[in-house]
Amino acid sequence: MLTRRRFVQGSAFAAGLGLVGQNALWAATDMATMPPGLTGTAFQEALRAMRSVVGARYVFADETGLLGYHDHFAMKPIEAHMPSAAVAPRTVEEIQALLKIARDHSVPVWTISTGRNFGYGGPAPRMPGTLVLDLKRMNRIIEVNERHAYAVVEPGVSYRDLYRHLQMTDSKLWIDCAAPGWGGVVGNLLDRGVGYTPMGEHFLQQQCGMQLVLSDGTVVDTGMGGQPGRSAEHTYRYGHGPWLDGLFTQSNFGVVTRLGVQLMPEPPGYRPYMVTFPDEAAIEPLTEAIRPLKLAQIIPNAATSTELIWEAAVEVRKDQYHDGAGPLPDSARKKLMADLGIGAWNFYGALYGPEAVMDATWPVIQDALGSIKGARFYSADDKKGSAAFAYRAKLMRGIPNMTEFGTVAWIPNAAHVGFGPVVPVDGRLALRQYNRVRELSTRAGFDYFGEFVVGWRDMHHIFMPAFRRDDEAEKERMLDLLEALIDDAAADHFGVYRTHLDLMDKVASTFSWNDHALGRLNARLKAGLDPAGILAPGKSGIWPERYREAGK
Amino acid sequence: MLTRRRFVQGSAFAAGLGLVGQNALWAATDMATMPPGLTGTAFQEALRAMRSVVGARYVFADETGLLGYHDHFAMKPIEAHMPSAAVAPRTVEEIQALLKIARDHSVPVWTISTGRNFGYGGPAPRMPGTLVLDLKRMNRIIEVNERHAYAVVEPGVSYRDLYRHLQMTDSKLWIDCAAPGWGGVVGNLLDRGVGYTPMGEHFLQQQCGMQLVLSDGTVVDTGMGGQPGRSAEHTYRYGHGPWLDGLFTQSNFGVVTRLGVQLMPEPPGYRPYMVTFPDEAAIEPLTEAIRPLKLAQIIPNAATSTELIWEAAVEVRKDQYHDGAGPLPDSARKKLMADLGIGAWNFYGALYGPEAVMDATWPVIQDALGSIKGARFYSADDKKGSAAFAYRAKLMRGIPNMTEFGTVAWIPNAAHVGFGPVVPVDGRLALRQYNRVRELSTRAGFDYFGEFVVGWRDMHHIFMPAFRRDDEAEKERMLDLLEALIDDAAADHFGVYRTHLDLMDKVASTFSWNDHALGRLNARLKAGLDPAGILAPGKSGIWPERYREAGK
Repeated sequence: MLTRRRFVQGSAFAAGLGLVGQNALWAATDMATMPPGLTGTAFQEALRAMRSVVGARYVFADETGLLGYHDHFAMKPIEAHMPSAAVAPRTVEEIQALLKIARDHSVPVWTISTGRNFGYGGPAPRMPGTLVLDLKRMNRIIEVNERHAYAVVEPGVSYRDLYRHLQMTDSKLWIDCAAPGWGGVVGNLLDRGVGYTPMGEHFLQQQCGMQLVLSDGTVVDTGMGGQPGRSAEHTYRYGHGPWLDGLFTQSNFGVVTRLGVQLMPEPPGYRPYMVTFPDEAAIEPLTEAIRPLKLAQIIPNAATSTELIWEAAVEVRKDQYHDGAGPLPDSARKKLMADLGIGAWNFYGALYGPEAVMDATWPVIQDALGSIKGARFYSADDKKGSAAFAYRAKLMRGIPNMTEFGTVAWIPNAAHVGFGPVVPVDGRLALRQYNRVRELSTRAGFDYFGEFVVGWRDMHHIFMPAFRRDDEAEKERMLDLLEALIDDAAADHFGVYRTHLDLMDKVASTFSWNDHALGRLNARLKAGLDPAGILAPGKSGIWPERYREAGK
Repeated sequence: MLTRRRFVQGSAFAAGLGLVGQNALWAATDMATMPPGLTGTAFQEALRAMRSVVGARYVFADETGLLGYHDHFAMKPIEAHMPSAAVAPRTVEEIQALLKIARDHSVPVWTISTGRNFGYGGPAPRMPGTLVLDLKRMNRIIEVNERHAYAVVEPGVSYRDLYRHLQMTDSKLWIDCAAPGWGGVVGNLLDRGVGYTPMGEHFLQQQCGMQLVLSDGTVVDTGMGGQPGRSAEHTYRYGHGPWLDGLFTQSNFGVVTRLGVQLMPEPPGYRPYMVTFPDEAAIEPLTEAIRPLKLAQIIPNAATSTELIWEAAVEVRKDQYHDGAGPLPDSARKKLMADLGIGAWNFYGALYGPEAVMDATWPVIQDALGSIKGARFYSADDKKGSAAFAYRAKLMRGIPNMTEFGTVAWIPNAAHVGFGPVVPVDGRLALRQYNRVRELSTRAGFDYFGEFVVGWRDMHHIFMPAFRRDDEAEKERMLDLLEALIDDAAADHFGVYRTHLDLMDKVASTFSWNDHALGRLNARLKAGLDPAGILAPGKSGIWPERYREAGK
């Protein structure tokens, strides 16, 4: 495994190049990062062939062209995930032609849709020298079906694209978006991301119909799409025989080129609400109250409990409350709560449906959450002027925005990174996770920046700490912290649902039951589906044989 | 492909053996059906080894012992799906040992849980001579978690078993069962069967956590089960990396030995209802009314529209209304409606939740369905004494029963068989499917016996016609009819979600897009995951290389 203190690919970069933050500058093109095992000449030949497929302007191999493919929020030196080049095809046929070149010339490719998952590595590949297959130009909204409430989209379609399209066509359909509205519908879903409406479990609730290209160029439509007539492709998930779609999530087994995404018809009514709790320990009774409400679908959408600092960072900067080093002291935390009218924990949910149904449901929620010490309820009217409430109210009805992404400005020149262990919906466990993560992050000098999101029956603990991009020591400390958190979660029996490039091998290694049987099965599937080993080496800790050494 | 008029396996059966219906009698044990390519001696050696694993009493190789493994509702002669033997292990370790013997001796195995899916082939294997791996003895309920509302079960656990266990332990959890209550929780879910409560889409809504054995004996726990601590195994479906569970549904890629099944907490209130419609064409406006109610989850459970004869067969026999040949005449249909107080279409749904929420929801449903010509609404009180309402009311709250299975007694000495095309929730398409299937079945001399079930956003058209088991010509006509229906549905762009052994190859062949790309991908996965080709040859039309010829 590449350590963050060692440079990449032997001779590819001179050690003293003086890289600063994400602004990696190449001394010259011939110092570019090459795919492992490839000479510059062989690689240039592959690029020439690729240019003939997509046109020269859509092959990016120089310093400037590749800036957009760096991990801008990297913890390791930028070259740890430096691509050799990027290519942006427009069609499935172009992807087939590019994969043929990649096979013929042994060029590994890393597929991205919009590459905006900045907390997890953004557009950068796991293995340095991998060529980025950027699908941003495949941005067609192929179909919107109002009657059956779905859309069919290509990987380059962002939440904003889809939302705007629906607005412009006077659609009565809502999308469900991740918090950063620039994200890609397909990329997020394939990474098993979540949103905040009643359709927030994207893979479970939305995905219906998938087209993909295997590494040998075969185009496969799964499920009912395997039928030439495909009338039920986007209303019924499965077909006949094994259901394969899950194989292509968080995976490197194929290149997904199209997805059916089920949408939510605009309900007759929508009422977002917020409940604040002053005590840090409130996450325990709050989680206990949420569980039965979610099981009974009284709360139909993502039940989100946001901690003080996440909530505050929407409105203020840290230096307005504390200009010393390390985490925010208690006195400043109290002042934040008072100034912003927020709690140590802040719960967001919403009601959807006919007015009478919402009226009947609301007292059940009030009874359950109101029994927790210090609970204060807020409606949209009560919270006019709150940027935090405003963006949550947007997210819970699927209006893309970038407000939450802005919380990275809590500290100057910052990046953020995600750690997402999955915890049963259990108050004691939530409190323990919170205490452990806060303790370890405090010890490492970082603010606890987290929320708990109950989707269906699971709870994602999303810890998304900010760190300075211009402080090498802080970046190292952050990576150390995340590694410690993964170990700590594993020891406490929690797995991580999604992770940054730097931590994929480590997270995969925690799935170790029966001598890593699951990982061995993944490796076997990888060998069978991508025998050339060209697709996304290292994604989710899955390495093709040929790059197993290079990836270390 | 084996035709129904030809006998199996060359010399295995003498052609004139005089088999009648399901009561196949072997002239002698040495005339047993052998696995293709195996001598009797080699097979006996394999059986000896298997006896040493599970004990002689759990290896069934004689005539009597194998009676329970026939397709009792077969359309073809019984030997078309005659197993060579059956073996019933008790543990995962025994399965591993049996698979080793199967690999070493080239014995193909067909896994069943309870084998009660009588409309699709029951416990019988697709390829004659396959050994049945019967998991009925693996019937432990490993865990019931009241707090997080799930159970963990082995494949031998039936709906009745699980229901009784919950009753006896005063559980507040509801199960969701298929209509025949003797069915297996695991087997039905893996075949992507459905039920009638709000958790009726078993694979999508219930399945969480899977243990399986690959053909090489490797035991894999998928998802969060790959973590040794596995605290979220049954509350979060996925783990880290590709999600593999779908691979093992309707498949022959592994032997599933344990499933997590999410259950529904008993709601504070439950109100089943029925709405009847006198016109045959009502299925069109009814389906149109259902779609928005399902999209908005106003109807949270399986919205079921049952046609006259299915509904009537719960209460009466055909000969009470018509003793001629062929389908029921219109005059008798009218009399049935009047006598039983039912419609040409009969809609079943239910409300769940707090009383106030149900009160608020009910008028929305009344408005939507009440606008259809001739609609009549019934509550449980209104339908006291109706066996049809009573069993539907049980199904919609997960009480296993066998009432619906009894409808096979519509005609004497009958079997039934399922044809299940998936149709978008569209009134025009529902009416067209109904008309086409009724027309073709009428022409073939059979009553239309069907219902439309809207689960999530899909509609299953379930056609489950009855035919006489003692009439060879009628059985041939039924198989011809089903083949014609599959062709007709495919021409109309509808795929079939699940099918009988005799029709798996045909249904698979309709998934022909891009030169059968989906089937080729399945074959590739099969080769990678089961290189010995011993698991369930022919399941869902997937054949391992070694039996591709033998299966024809």
